[in-house]
Amino acid sequence: MTQLHDTSSRGFASDNYAGIHPEVLAAIAEANGGHQVAYGEDVYTAELQLVMKSHFGEQAETFPVFNGTGANVTALTSLLPRWGAVVSAKTAHINTDEGGAPERVSGLKLLTVEVPDGKLTPELIDLEAWGWGDEHRAQPLAVSITNTTELGTLYSVDEIRAISDHAHSLGMKVHLDGARISNAAAALGVPLREFTTDAGVDILSFGGTKNGLLYGEAVVVLNPESSEGLTYLRKLNMQLASKMRFVSAQLIALLADDLYLRSAGHANAMAARLRAALEAEIAAGTISGLSFSQATDANAVFAVLPAGVADTLRESFRFYDWDAAANEVRWMASFDTTEQDIDTFVAAISRELAV
Amino acid sequence: MTQLHDTSSRGFASDNYAGIHPEVLAAIAEANGGHQVAYGEDVYTAELQLVMKSHFGEQAETFPVFNGTGANVTALTSLLPRWGAVVSAKTAHINTDEGGAPERVSGLKLLTVEVPDGKLTPELIDLEAWGWGDEHRAQPLAVSITNTTELGTLYSVDEIRAISDHAHSLGMKVHLDGARISNAAAALGVPLREFTTDAGVDILSFGGTKNGLLYGEAVVVLNPESSEGLTYLRKLNMQLASKMRFVSAQLIALLADDLYLRSAGHANAMAARLRAALEAEIAAGTISGLSFSQATDANAVFAVLPAGVADTLRESFRFYDWDAAANEVRWMASFDTTEQDIDTFVAAISRELAV
Amino acid sequence: MTQLHDTSSRGFASDNYAGIHPEVLAAIAEANGGHQVAYGEDVYTAELQLVMKSHFGEQAETFPVFNGTGANVTALTSLLPRWGAVVSAKTAHINTDEGGAPERVSGLKLLTVEVPDGKLTPELIDLEAWGWGDEHRAQPLAVSITNTTELGTLYSVDEIRAISDHAHSLGMKVHLDGARISNAAAALGVPLREFTTDAGVDILSFGGTKNGLLYGEAVVVLNPESSEGLTYLRKLNMQLASKMRFVSAQLIALLADDLYLRSAGHANAMAARLRAALEAEIAAGTISGLSFSQATDANAVFAVLPAGVADTLRESFRFYDWDAAANEVRWMASFDTTEQDIDTFVAAISRELAV
Amino acid sequence: MTQLHDTSSRGFASDNYAGIHPEVLAAIAEANGGHQVAYGEDVYTAELQLVMKSHFGEQAETFPVFNGTGANVTALTSLLPRWGAVVSAKTAHINTDEGGAPERVSGLKLLTVEVPDGKLTPELIDLEAWGWGDEHRAQPLAVSITNTTELGTLYSVDEIRAISDHAHSLGMKVHLDGARISNAAAALGVPLREFTTDAGVDILSFGGTKNGLLYGEAVVVLNPESSEGLTYLRKLNMQLASKMRFVSAQLIALLADDLYLRSAGHANAMAARLRAALEAEIAAGTISGLSFSQATDANAVFAVLPAGVADTLRESFRFYDWDAAANEVRWMASFDTTEQDIDTFVAAISRELAV
Repeated sequence: MTQLHDTSSRGFASDNYAGIHPEVLAAIAEANGGHQVAYGEDVYTAELQLVMKSHFGEQAETFPVFNGTGANVTALTSLLPRWGAVVSAKTAHINTDEGGAPERVSGLKLLTVEVPDGKLTPELIDLEAWGWGDEHRAQPLAVSITNTTELGTLYSVDEIRAISDHAHSLGMKVHLDGARISNAAAALGVPLREFTTDAGVDILSFGGTKNGLLYGEAVVVLNPESSEGLTYLRKLNMQLASKMRFVSAQLIALLADDLYLRSAGHANAMAARLRAALEAEIAAGTISGLSFSQATDANAVFAVLPAGVADTLRESFRFYDWDAAANEVRWMASFDTTEQDIDTFVAAISRELAV
Repeated sequence: MTQLHDTSSRGFASDNYAGIHPEVLAAIAEANGGHQVAYGEDVYTAELQLVMKSHFGEQAETFPVFNGTGANVTALTSLLPRWGAVVSAKTAHINTDEGGAPERVSGLKLLTVEVPDGKLTPELIDLEAWGWGDEHRAQPLAVSITNTTELGTLYSVDEIRAISDHAHSLGMKVHLDGARISNAAAALGVPLREFTTDAGVDILSFGGTKNGLLYGEAVVVLNPESSEGLTYLRKLNMQLASKMRFVSAQLIALLADDLYLRSAGHANAMAARLRAALEAEIAAGTISGLSFSQATDANAVFAVLPAGVADTLRESFRFYDWDAAANEVRWMASFDTTEQDIDTFVAAISRELAV
Repeated sequence: MTQLHDTSSRGFASDNYAGIHPEVLAAIAEANGGHQVAYGEDVYTAELQLVMKSHFGEQAETFPVFNGTGANVTALTSLLPRWGAVVSAKTAHINTDEGGAPERVSGLKLLTVEVPDGKLTPELIDLEAWGWGDEHRAQPLAVSITNTTELGTLYSVDEIRAISDHAHSLGMKVHLDGARISNAAAALGVPLREFTTDAGVDILSFGGTKNGLLYGEAVVVLNPESSEGLTYLRKLNMQLASKMRFVSAQLIALLADDLYLRSAGHANAMAARLRAALEAEIAAGTISGLSFSQATDANAVFAVLPAGVADTLRESFRFYDWDAAANEVRWMASFDTTEQDIDTFVAAISRELAV
Repeated sequence: MTQLHDTSSRGFASDNYAGIHPEVLAAIAEANGGHQVAYGEDVYTAELQLVMKSHFGEQAETFPVFNGTGANVTALTSLLPRWGAVVSAKTAHINTDEGGAPERVSGLKLLTVEVPDGKLTPELIDLEAWGWGDEHRAQPLAVSITNTTELGTLYSVDEIRAISDHAHSLGMKVHLDGARISNAAAALGVPLREFTTDAGVDILSFGGTKNGLLYGEAVVVLNPESSEGLTYLRKLNMQLASKMRFVSAQLIALLADDLYLRSAGHANAMAARLRAALEAEIAAGTISGLSFSQATDANAVFAVLPAGVADTLRESFRFYDWDAAANEVRWMASFDTTEQDIDTFVAAISRELAV
């Protein structure tokens, strides 16, 4: 096959516009050759179980899957009876970006709450956590949070612990959508289990694709008593990879040493560099019209621009509107974003916004 | 990551125990680097559309997905209203090996027919193709066939044409599960479109994983009037890859020149070598107790062994029972099976069955 | 069977606490005896088709079903492909009181909007009516409104027309949940078709149970081009009555002359009598602490009481809290509520709230 | 409403072509008047619980629903996790006549077995009861049988006990579709619990509509440990009647004294009269060309007629072909079939088949 694209071109649209980290690609090649039992009985998947236990505790059970939507829907389904509903932020990926898969594949009703910054709190959960025993109301039996959130913000360990304690006190289970869990770990500066297992999270969607994998995520059961039937649910949800050794080998490459932290930490740093540079320009009075609509806790910058500026910038740099009506845009950094990429982008933005 | 397995070990359990063909792995590396638009708007997916059109006709539309179950369920769902049912062989993968995904994910009722050799015929279809307009009966609106079949047998071009003509005359659509479509093409010795598009098939699950891909299949719409909503259905069925460029690059590597035929033809030849060697032994009277329960049209050999022999062989070679009660086993060849592998296996079988 | 209950006891909890209107029970008896074809090919169902056409236009097609949830889910499902979503008020019965049936039975995602008075507007619809063509977003292809609403308020003909025009301009279809459509007709004082067919509604859940039927509702297709497969969907949604003649006979009794208006008009008048009496007391300064949280457009009164008063009243009169935290209650009148019932209740309330 | 039909006309098409037994209609009238709590908290539903316990044991829990499909799907769903499948006869109503509702509403895969007489046996169950733990196979976790069967045949107490014992030994649960359970009780001549609770059945669809109810069935949990979530499942399956008092009152009328036996016993006797009269004619050599394709254990006669005779008879008597290709018809008797109805029909048949 011939290479069809410019391998030096990078933008700020999404961390899944990036490709495969070289160490991950090397791991795929290492796992190749010979035959291995299909559907997860291979040695790499066995090894992955150990790697995940080293991060999340001995009780952790790992089910590699194809993608994030598959991880989220399969994880949540395993927590809930057919009459269960999920309390989530209205901005949650499961609500806004999964094509209705939770409802359509598993019949999961989402009970969503308006949030300013992508984050639930015990008080916000209470807006929808009620009505147990009333057959007319879909039963709120789980809470789903995302860390880092879809708005680039970060739950602290204490905030997650407060949510878990509250949910558990109500008989509800806790799911963490960790599509960007590595970015959260890098931002928090604590081991993975400190803001998951030890903070009371029952089940986790562990994300790999947005952090340099070719493809591959994992449902990680942190509290085995919370979840049932994942072996079957993964298959009937069409998320069971036959050549699972390659998903597992990638996740091992990510997690067995500190690649997950190096890559995510770098992406976070590049977003911080972008924001700091622009804030410095604002402080210096050299640009105007730019403001930030969310904290930059990880690898995303949410900004509000003067009308028209986003389209001009997009002639050279790819990124998305977040709320077109409000002139709000999202800029994402990824594992392969360079300092030069950021500096070039800052220069371009500054030209457009120069006072 | 450290290599954990013996890359020289191969068995006869399944063509998905094999790994990645080197040309496919090279294509993944070629497609790496830089940023590409996620979710299918990349240049490799655009190129794949052209490649598929060159094989299946200008009208063909291609939707890369993760796996075979995903391809089958998504393809069938796009053919059918909520009240549609699918006539298939009882031995069809959609009925026996997908964990109920067609019923559970899409509510598709399967109307199955007993078949001796994995193959439907117009007459067999008629056993379940009736009751249109009767609201008490799930409406039979599609036929699904597999080529090559789950029993290693092959539909001829004429057989597929007869099924399509019959199905269409009844207002039914035709799906072909092509998990091993390359093996069928190699066995038939005709272009892909001759036994698909030109034989009246409406939609196709194009298989890659069993023929040397890391992962990746595609739903290929051959008759655009037959199918609706695939863009949405792929997403809500959790089969939309973010880094789709890598699925597409693999499929291009497979299809842009003749890799699909080389690999599948080799696997077929290895199965034929196995069968021929054993038949020669039988004819020579040097072994006894072995018979064949299905034709070896492609890369599978179905054999009946004396009680206990399968377990003895499995101490050295991995393969599956097909019908344990009948002492029937399945031996699969794959792209990486060598003549030496076959000859060693034949020698071992012959030792066990020596007169 | 022995009568087990006090037939003179009536409360204000719900219009489905009431029983069967005598004219409806007589119609059931009339339809009894002899054999009639099951599942809707009987003479009463044929007659009902004509009766419904006389109200909703010659194009109207009627599908009797068991209950309101069944009518709503079946109607909406017939409007939408598997990827369709429904914009509704957050207070809609389909969202709050159907146990998640729309999501669970049909995979319908609800895109809900906060509303102060139970009513959508074109502007409110626009909050969720966007994203067509984006496979990541469940596609908003229908709007569902309720008249009279779950908050006892009433859409005018013009308001419905504005919603229909707006929805249609966006390629969306319009469903009207008419669980209390007779109360709406009585309140509006116009023929049924004026605020349904003629106002652009595509499909209707026609309610009977809350207006004196033993059981029975109907999906009425007002725009046959909007809906597909109801024959099959009614069956697979488990809403096909075998002895349908009795559902149809009841609906004929309700609609063939003006019983629907007499009953609903009476219920509306009783609610108005309750509100007027209490407002008079307030105006006279004889009671205090009571306010009304919604307009009383039909047969429901929403009131806010001083803490504790609701529980005291409930020792003698059954009714529900609406928002317990806000001390908000709902009082419903039904076809069999008497002036004496109202006056006794007003007296009791007045005793509790006497200045 | 005007009576539109001939109340003296009766045929042999189905026991649900009949109307309401006068004692049942009287019970509805008795339960009318005044207000009763909706959705099952009424005094008649409380009384029904006691009546059902008197028949099925103190542990029995009863959930009235609208119709048989609703009862079957809701009962089975409460037995099974999302990955469960049901072994049934291919002729089972859940497989042939419910429009795919088990698959579509609840994702239940049916694993069907060919049976000659509508009846499963432990040996027949074993054809599909295998593969536990294999995620590729929908997990066979329940058996569903029908008594009397869809072919008019009867399971004995011992046959049901053998099935239950076998199923339980495999970790499977047992559902009995009792759409015609009263006919079975009358035919067996034993109390209801002897061939249900005491024979190991875990859950029951108790049928009323085919035995003289206006509408109404009940899911009866016989083994409370087998079933979960019926309160919620009934609602989300759209089977929760608001005015449940009237379903319950009808079931009380049927069961509180011996109406269920009187009505079903009469229907059985009328079928027996039909068969005996025709067999006598055959034995006497006065007619020819008629044979019986199933035993007449209850209220159904399955007969094979010379080509064309069925259509001639249908000019005067309504009944259904069962297998048109085989000239097989089904004649059903119901609670209101008279001896005169039978004798007139016998005379007509005899005229057509006279030697």
